[in-house]
Amino acid sequence: MEPIDIEVVSDPDLEDPTFIEGLPGVGHVGKLVAEHLVEEFDGTLVRRVYTTQFPPQVTVDDEGVTELTHAEFHHVDAEGVDLLVLTGDHQAASNEGHYTLTDAFLDVAEEFGCERAFALGGVPTGELIEDDEYDVLGAVSDRDAREGLEEAGVEFREDEPAGGIVGVSGLVLGLGGRRGLNAACLMGETSGYLVDPKSAQAVLEVLQNALGFEVDFADLEERAEEMEEVVGKIQEMQGGGGMPSEDELRYIG
Amino acid sequence: MEPIDIEVVSDPDLEDPTFIEGLPGVGHVGKLVAEHLVEEFDGTLVRRVYTTQFPPQVTVDDEGVTELTHAEFHHVDAEGVDLLVLTGDHQAASNEGHYTLTDAFLDVAEEFGCERAFALGGVPTGELIEDDEYDVLGAVSDRDAREGLEEAGVEFREDEPAGGIVGVSGLVLGLGGRRGLNAACLMGETSGYLVDPKSAQAVLEVLQNALGFEVDFADLEERAEEMEEVVGKIQEMQGGGGMPSEDELRYIG
Amino acid sequence: MEPIDIEVVSDPDLEDPTFIEGLPGVGHVGKLVAEHLVEEFDGTLVRRVYTTQFPPQVTVDDEGVTELTHAEFHHVDAEGVDLLVLTGDHQAASNEGHYTLTDAFLDVAEEFGCERAFALGGVPTGELIEDDEYDVLGAVSDRDAREGLEEAGVEFREDEPAGGIVGVSGLVLGLGGRRGLNAACLMGETSGYLVDPKSAQAVLEVLQNALGFEVDFADLEERAEEMEEVVGKIQEMQGGGGMPSEDELRYIG
Amino acid sequence: MEPIDIEVVSDPDLEDPTFIEGLPGVGHVGKLVAEHLVEEFDGTLVRRVYTTQFPPQVTVDDEGVTELTHAEFHHVDAEGVDLLVLTGDHQAASNEGHYTLTDAFLDVAEEFGCERAFALGGVPTGELIEDDEYDVLGAVSDRDAREGLEEAGVEFREDEPAGGIVGVSGLVLGLGGRRGLNAACLMGETSGYLVDPKSAQAVLEVLQNALGFEVDFADLEERAEEMEEVVGKIQEMQGGGGMPSEDELRYIG
Repeated sequence: MEPIDIEVVSDPDLEDPTFIEGLPGVGHVGKLVAEHLVEEFDGTLVRRVYTTQFPPQVTVDDEGVTELTHAEFHHVDAEGVDLLVLTGDHQAASNEGHYTLTDAFLDVAEEFGCERAFALGGVPTGELIEDDEYDVLGAVSDRDAREGLEEAGVEFREDEPAGGIVGVSGLVLGLGGRRGLNAACLMGETSGYLVDPKSAQAVLEVLQNALGFEVDFADLEERAEEMEEVVGKIQEMQGGGGMPSEDELRYIG
Repeated sequence: MEPIDIEVVSDPDLEDPTFIEGLPGVGHVGKLVAEHLVEEFDGTLVRRVYTTQFPPQVTVDDEGVTELTHAEFHHVDAEGVDLLVLTGDHQAASNEGHYTLTDAFLDVAEEFGCERAFALGGVPTGELIEDDEYDVLGAVSDRDAREGLEEAGVEFREDEPAGGIVGVSGLVLGLGGRRGLNAACLMGETSGYLVDPKSAQAVLEVLQNALGFEVDFADLEERAEEMEEVVGKIQEMQGGGGMPSEDELRYIG
Repeated sequence: MEPIDIEVVSDPDLEDPTFIEGLPGVGHVGKLVAEHLVEEFDGTLVRRVYTTQFPPQVTVDDEGVTELTHAEFHHVDAEGVDLLVLTGDHQAASNEGHYTLTDAFLDVAEEFGCERAFALGGVPTGELIEDDEYDVLGAVSDRDAREGLEEAGVEFREDEPAGGIVGVSGLVLGLGGRRGLNAACLMGETSGYLVDPKSAQAVLEVLQNALGFEVDFADLEERAEEMEEVVGKIQEMQGGGGMPSEDELRYIG
Repeated sequence: MEPIDIEVVSDPDLEDPTFIEGLPGVGHVGKLVAEHLVEEFDGTLVRRVYTTQFPPQVTVDDEGVTELTHAEFHHVDAEGVDLLVLTGDHQAASNEGHYTLTDAFLDVAEEFGCERAFALGGVPTGELIEDDEYDVLGAVSDRDAREGLEEAGVEFREDEPAGGIVGVSGLVLGLGGRRGLNAACLMGETSGYLVDPKSAQAVLEVLQNALGFEVDFADLEERAEEMEEVVGKIQEMQGGGGMPSEDELRYIG
């Protein structure tokens, strides 16, 4: 196998598509949003990306059939808005691998004619978000894109996130920007301890505004309620309304 | 030395051979089965595989003579059933290495004409197995292969093992499946703490049923008795019939 | 992206320039000096060096605009003395990467005609420096360069630093020396626990003497005062004049 | 710089030379022997081996002059017996690197016409050696070489060392053996906690017998006495003749 092996599954013509990256990260926010889009709009698988950067691993499905771990691109038709959505279970295994792999992802996006990209993720606040006030923080590869995103509800804060943006999301902006791609990162605020469907909902709302489509939130709301029950139970076990400790939260999701 | 260096030792013609992978893993189940087959049927060494993915190490034999660490393919004639059995002491050292090395192993299997493969291993249950009820869990690269294996005694459980299958075994299915190889993974239940000859026996029984041969189990039974004595002594030392602690068990074998 | 990708920003003719390396290290001494030179003399950006050896990361500026992490070369005209100053936020990610990256840096220095180099850094003493007596330790790739540096105030101590010099600084001397570059390492004594502008000042003084220019120290002095306030507060919190513990100091800066 | 860069310093004609490897390892036994040979017989430097497998590091000498870390081959004329002695401060940084680097070392040995090799090292016993009874354990790439070594005082024990031989020493036998080199490993018993000049002496005695030369031991004896003083002081501090604890010993040398 080559270091990166891209399998062509289908090759639809897309109209002015936007590249959406939703690989795993803080609170699994980006992954939740990307998978929600693929499910709600019944996306079409267009590419499988296998790579020696991923763990040597197969998943086993409900019939006991294995599949070599890979990332997937789906074409999502969001009420006439064409999206090219990247999902998967892994980031790369090394610094160098992140660069090589993101370059390959950007090649696919370019091949489909994407001139715009959103890298989706979460930004950890270190505490549970109160009153469902989930801000969505933004960063852009191109200064001119900022105003439109502010109108869509994205917040820009000086020099934040302080540690920059790492992983594939960071490089979609870094390498994509150098290629001339108009790329933005949307980061939902999240505690950082939990898989966070509410933060995903906040990111999705911004994305709707920015791209002009609407999507049903029922599934995400259901998952959010499940998570709240889990948190509630932990709080009871602690005999009070206190916040679960970091250690307890780390393993939820 | 090249990253992978395959030494041809002999080149017998095999008739519809089955590739059996038994590298080290959970409970050394796969390794025990593969080595048992080579010994009982007096297998013929056909290939040595040296690789920079293995530790920089020589083993020393009973006469003080060294041998560079490597994996071996033996031809095993199991009562007329041709097997190509892979054994060794190591997995690869990196993600990328696992892919490269498994590809090389699959090349050898292909060269000998194997169209079917069994990757052998253990699946950890986290507790000692009671009453010798060692189930053998299965996963297949090809949905059609499932029925035959169920008849041979393999159990299929929805989405299990939950973490998928990792290492060379996983890739024999993942990469092998992509090449059109009909590959199955047979995983003997085992505590995960001990080298487990009983779990190996359970896997071997299933393999006999699936491929239509019979093999003597005396050696494995003897090793199983030795292991039981060890466990018994530990339980005595603890002054009771309690299960040895995880820490004690970790070092047995 | 190639493993190393050098972007030409401008290409001024330099007159007998000296290469100054100031990547992050002990006490961030080298980085502080290099950045101070670029700021005080209003340096001109000449090269951006991108590499897969750096983390997969973008920084976010005060307007929310991202930039792929990279190292920079500036031309600094220090009162008629031409300097080629290397700054950045990272060292390489592996042994091999350090060699490859330093070779690339030396190629740039050679391209601009540098025949002399200073690798700047700190040498940890393990305790806070008393009475502002910040010695600057030196090492040279070329024995003949020692005398001139001693005259400029550099101290040479037998076999020190005992552990040698590691990272890009070490290789500027090691690889640079093998190319015929006249390279010296200037290491300001520093506790090793704090970002140390005073140590940077000491290194800068030596550099001024060696190269024959003068630079304003006001900014470094201001940063040094800020650091002293921080240390003072910690000492108060400890209810005494004792030195802050290593754990407290580790996180300052 | 290339991954491996061999600098030719001189090119004497050697008569039936023996390759001696003495890189750092258990008790620094091999390194002590190799360096002792170079010093006592006033060896001539013939090759410097630089490699990206070594740390990015320069050493600093007593005059403050730096040298890029490397391994060295010396020609040693041991009373008419030609030796090609490899010394250095590092092993390789990765599995793959060990293979590549040892291959390069073997190329040099081959270039000088070595048909025989001794890889020198220590074998840890986990306890201080009593009454100066330092056995020297052996392993050979070629069964026929065993008898001669037994006559020289080497002990061969079934399947020992149990973990095989790792690092460059292991591969001098593993890779060298595959090339047809007659290679042996001589391992002096040593506690494993201390730099052990007495174990080095034991190895040196065997080597003298095997190759037919004599060397002065005074320097090694002196170092051994220094080590004994250190151990004695620790034992006093413990208020008794007890063996120093493993933790205390780990840091001596």
